[in-house]
Amino acid sequence: MDGWMIPALGVAGLAFAYLLYFVITRRSEGEGEIKAIGDEIHLGAMVFMRREYLMLLLFSSVVLVLIFFGLGTNTAIAFVVGASCSALAGYFGMFSATRANVRTAVAARDEGAAGALSIAFYGGSIMGLCVASLGLIGLGALYLMFGSNPEHAEAIHGFGVGASSVALFSRVGGGIFTKSADIGADLVGKVEAGIPEDDPRNPGVIADNVGDNVGDVAGMGSDIFESYCGSIIATMAIAATLAIGMAEKTNSMLLPLALAAIGLIASVLGILIVRLRAGSAPDAALRSGMLLAPVVFVAMAWVVMGRLAVDGRLADNPMLDIWLSVLAGAVGGVAVGLITDYYTSKKPVRDIAQAGETGPATVLIAGLAVGMQSVVLPLLVICGIIFVSTYLAGLYGVGIAAVGMLATVGITMAVDAYGPVADNAGGIAEMGGMGAETREITDSLDELGNTTAAIGKGFAISAAALAALAIIAAFIQTVEKNVDGFALELSNPMVLIGLFIGGLLPFLIASITMTAVGDAAFDMIKEIRRQFKEIPGLLEGTGKPDTARCVDIATSAALRRMMLPGVIAVGSPVVVGFVLGPEALGGMLGGALLSCVLLALMMANAGGAWDNAKKYVEKGNLGGKGSEVHAATVVGDTVGDPFKDTSGPSMNILINVMAIVSLVIAPLLG
Amino acid sequence: MDGWMIPALGVAGLAFAYLLYFVITRRSEGEGEIKAIGDEIHLGAMVFMRREYLMLLLFSSVVLVLIFFGLGTNTAIAFVVGASCSALAGYFGMFSATRANVRTAVAARDEGAAGALSIAFYGGSIMGLCVASLGLIGLGALYLMFGSNPEHAEAIHGFGVGASSVALFSRVGGGIFTKSADIGADLVGKVEAGIPEDDPRNPGVIADNVGDNVGDVAGMGSDIFESYCGSIIATMAIAATLAIGMAEKTNSMLLPLALAAIGLIASVLGILIVRLRAGSAPDAALRSGMLLAPVVFVAMAWVVMGRLAVDGRLADNPMLDIWLSVLAGAVGGVAVGLITDYYTSKKPVRDIAQAGETGPATVLIAGLAVGMQSVVLPLLVICGIIFVSTYLAGLYGVGIAAVGMLATVGITMAVDAYGPVADNAGGIAEMGGMGAETREITDSLDELGNTTAAIGKGFAISAAALAALAIIAAFIQTVEKNVDGFALELSNPMVLIGLFIGGLLPFLIASITMTAVGDAAFDMIKEIRRQFKEIPGLLEGTGKPDTARCVDIATSAALRRMMLPGVIAVGSPVVVGFVLGPEALGGMLGGALLSCVLLALMMANAGGAWDNAKKYVEKGNLGGKGSEVHAATVVGDTVGDPFKDTSGPSMNILINVMAIVSLVIAPLLG
Repeated sequence: MDGWMIPALGVAGLAFAYLLYFVITRRSEGEGEIKAIGDEIHLGAMVFMRREYLMLLLFSSVVLVLIFFGLGTNTAIAFVVGASCSALAGYFGMFSATRANVRTAVAARDEGAAGALSIAFYGGSIMGLCVASLGLIGLGALYLMFGSNPEHAEAIHGFGVGASSVALFSRVGGGIFTKSADIGADLVGKVEAGIPEDDPRNPGVIADNVGDNVGDVAGMGSDIFESYCGSIIATMAIAATLAIGMAEKTNSMLLPLALAAIGLIASVLGILIVRLRAGSAPDAALRSGMLLAPVVFVAMAWVVMGRLAVDGRLADNPMLDIWLSVLAGAVGGVAVGLITDYYTSKKPVRDIAQAGETGPATVLIAGLAVGMQSVVLPLLVICGIIFVSTYLAGLYGVGIAAVGMLATVGITMAVDAYGPVADNAGGIAEMGGMGAETREITDSLDELGNTTAAIGKGFAISAAALAALAIIAAFIQTVEKNVDGFALELSNPMVLIGLFIGGLLPFLIASITMTAVGDAAFDMIKEIRRQFKEIPGLLEGTGKPDTARCVDIATSAALRRMMLPGVIAVGSPVVVGFVLGPEALGGMLGGALLSCVLLALMMANAGGAWDNAKKYVEKGNLGGKGSEVHAATVVGDTVGDPFKDTSGPSMNILINVMAIVSLVIAPLLG
Repeated sequence: MDGWMIPALGVAGLAFAYLLYFVITRRSEGEGEIKAIGDEIHLGAMVFMRREYLMLLLFSSVVLVLIFFGLGTNTAIAFVVGASCSALAGYFGMFSATRANVRTAVAARDEGAAGALSIAFYGGSIMGLCVASLGLIGLGALYLMFGSNPEHAEAIHGFGVGASSVALFSRVGGGIFTKSADIGADLVGKVEAGIPEDDPRNPGVIADNVGDNVGDVAGMGSDIFESYCGSIIATMAIAATLAIGMAEKTNSMLLPLALAAIGLIASVLGILIVRLRAGSAPDAALRSGMLLAPVVFVAMAWVVMGRLAVDGRLADNPMLDIWLSVLAGAVGGVAVGLITDYYTSKKPVRDIAQAGETGPATVLIAGLAVGMQSVVLPLLVICGIIFVSTYLAGLYGVGIAAVGMLATVGITMAVDAYGPVADNAGGIAEMGGMGAETREITDSLDELGNTTAAIGKGFAISAAALAALAIIAAFIQTVEKNVDGFALELSNPMVLIGLFIGGLLPFLIASITMTAVGDAAFDMIKEIRRQFKEIPGLLEGTGKPDTARCVDIATSAALRRMMLPGVIAVGSPVVVGFVLGPEALGGMLGGALLSCVLLALMMANAGGAWDNAKKYVEKGNLGGKGSEVHAATVVGDTVGDPFKDTSGPSMNILINVMAIVSLVIAPLLG
């Protein structure tokens, strides 16, 4: 496989994404009120994105200047490419998702479940394809520019910083936006005014629907993009430091890119399989695509490795060992997904719902206990991957395992981003008064989306953890080159102090983001209450709510409140690295990795379990909708909102930003 | 200072405790119903303790056999001494506390606030004095037996395992008991039956009051005892491995014991100061005792060090550096207390209460955010202590700093254990119908107790962290002696895997204990509901509740559900150490330390803040008792119950048990 094929495959992937977009836009976007709602959501999302990217531009300009003077032109170029690719992927994905949502609703009404599933899934697939393709184009181009010369290869790290900067804003900002809108709209609408979810009279529902796209499509996409590219960059960096022959080294650096490229091909196959099976049960269709892609990928990986191996070896290891590392990563990713599925949709969920019989407090206790328990198995899986891959192929093995987990990101992200599209379609059906039958179809698609979203989150966390680990490994190797006698011994007080500081930062970021959601939701509640009071005839359905004002509140809150977490994430490695030294920085990365993974898993799974416990009751169990048990589970769901969609996902970004910034400044330390 | 003076001072401390007990028992224990309630609580606590110690005996016998055959007679003797001293301290302390509670209520009625404060504080002081004195007696005697011969000094580690085994049962079992009773009684009584807290008609109130003693007196006492002795043992162990002259080594091993001994003297002075100032404002009285004792201790420490120094040096460092380490520990302990006070009684508490305006969900989000934020400063203080003490005096400095923080445990524990005595007095006043005026006095004492309890918990966590850190340091030194080239490098995959395993265990234990409380509370609720339904005239006040049955449910649940956490805590270092090796074990201790401290602080402070937010509303703010804001804060308080009194405190035990077991098996590894 030649280097030029990587970006070429990326371009082909983008073309396929455009084809899907073309197919979507041929479908009816509805008429009158329905079209208007769809446009309102689309425009709200675009307005948010524009304002977000404007702030991102300011933030990135500062970082760019620092990189330019600190690390040179090449790294600065890579930074710009990385930020641009990530921003474009988010933009394309969200643009398409907010085109697909209304069409999904219309298709549900006019064609039934299979047609609606196809469109929603296409909407999600565009995001998945854009993430994978733009990663390949950007990194592939940089590899062609700098990769052949190991002197310049370090410049590629700048791509990671760019991708992480975008992820920081999209994920944290998007998370604050989506949950402040969701909680605000729910608390006033459902609880105070007594109107159903997604009722068009509620001034907050458009903001809520915009939030699904902003947080779950664009935010999630940038999160996965960051891990995807981070794992590739780290593996290339580890390969660059190996003491092996030039041919083997070049091929070992190319391998992660090549794996990502065939992962894209496998993802496209997976997408086609889902399309083919869309007529059968939707969950079986999604599942077959999700499971087939990794199998195809792992098989093709063997072929590609055969072409890149030099004397049957890659990165100083037998080819088989490297391939088994890929397998470990791919299997681990599926395993974490299944574990997440268990905790967020099986017995633990019913236990939480049952705890609702003694009120909201016991729902909370049960949910927190489930969340805490749910960290155990995924972490052991990650330990297993680390053990197998390092045993077989050292640090390079860890990197390759991360790439193995992330290579089929196209299909994983497609299935994940399908969820918010279906969710939005349900909202539009409700707001547009499209009838019970349509609503039933969108509800079933949405429910499936909740499960895939939970699995996607588990996958995103373990992928982020492995990617960060690979980047940290690359960081250690880079510092070792520059600092004589560098060792991260836990018995060194500076390492220990770093470990503690790294451990507390995720708690601080989680606290800041949860508080931001709480405050913004409070503002939202006040505004919605004001509109109900001041706009004549709003509750009766004769007045029109000022939905733009609510979108604006969520937007402003998100943009204002994401600055502090951003500065902490980017600044802490710099401050600790230069003030306390590289040992403290290494310790900090270890502590932050541990603490981030623990909190991310706990928050995502507790949130997912509370959400589904509420849904379980709403299906008529334990008294059904309107019962006291239901009210108790609603409290759990509301607490779970910032857990699973704001603070939890921020952890993935935090550890990756900290790791990539550390890697970039590593040559300056010592 | 000679070695024999240590146990002698311990005996003197016990004598002083007995004097206080004698003073308490001279006071009136009330008449009729009031006396009967006091007796019922006392007997309930004693029955629980007897059953708990029986299980402890079985558990300890197994451990004893393993220690005897694995590590020899001396360690086995030390184990028995450690377990006995801890068990006796808990027994004496709780026996006295359940004698003091009813007398505090009677004194509040007959004499007013000053008299009641004295008795409640005496009740708590006995616990504090027993912890400090029995620690000195046990460790002092073992030092005289084994300490002079560094070959045998390792046997003293067995004392730590004994103390930790008792702590495991008392803290975890006590925590499950107290909160299942509390939540069960509250949910049925206050919420369903609509009767006030501590109403004698509620079958669960005796169990609730027993629980305060079982959890907050005996459990807390064993927790602090473990840290207190752990820090002394670790410092002795570190001194034993130093390559210095025999005289200096012997004195460096004696120093932590000598510091603890003068800490006891300073604590007695503190207790007397509180007694002298009991006539003035109660909080000023407690505060002056708590602040004076460390000042006296630090001053006296200088004098004692002068006597033990050899050529102005101790443990290979100038005496001044060692003294500054003591100072760092003492100041750090006070600082963490003040930070805890801020998060659990100042602005964050009012913010949480205010969040109640939008319902229980926002109370929960706000409280969790406060809990997460509250870990930052205490952890930075711990980092500061580590930095200063290791910079000045290496690993020995860390141990000495931990001893410096814990030496005045007598007064800290006294102030802390005062809380549940005052709380119980309030309950007895309510149950015995002692009138509004009495209740007002006990309420004000109880409120003060809530603040001191929160400060005590912050102190216990940081003390446990430093003690565990010192033990881990001793573990590393011991393994280094036996295993060539042993290093805990984070870049070693086994260390990393250990770090991850260590990090997930606290989440697992927290989940198990929270679930245990939830389940046991559910059983309790069913039983109380049954009694209200089946016992004729219970709600009208003519029937008598079967309180013993409720005590029994809580007891059985506590004893049954503490086995699994116990086995995990004791077993995991053994399994990881022997299966994955000493590097993984070292990593595990690092990960567990970090994760335990983070969770313990978060849970304790969130719980304390929720508790006080509810109290803040009950004082008439934001609508006062019976308002919707109040109902919302009650939910927060209930979730906080297992956080602050079961799962959070279990973390202190977990890390210390894991550390001391690792230290004991260290010579067998490699």
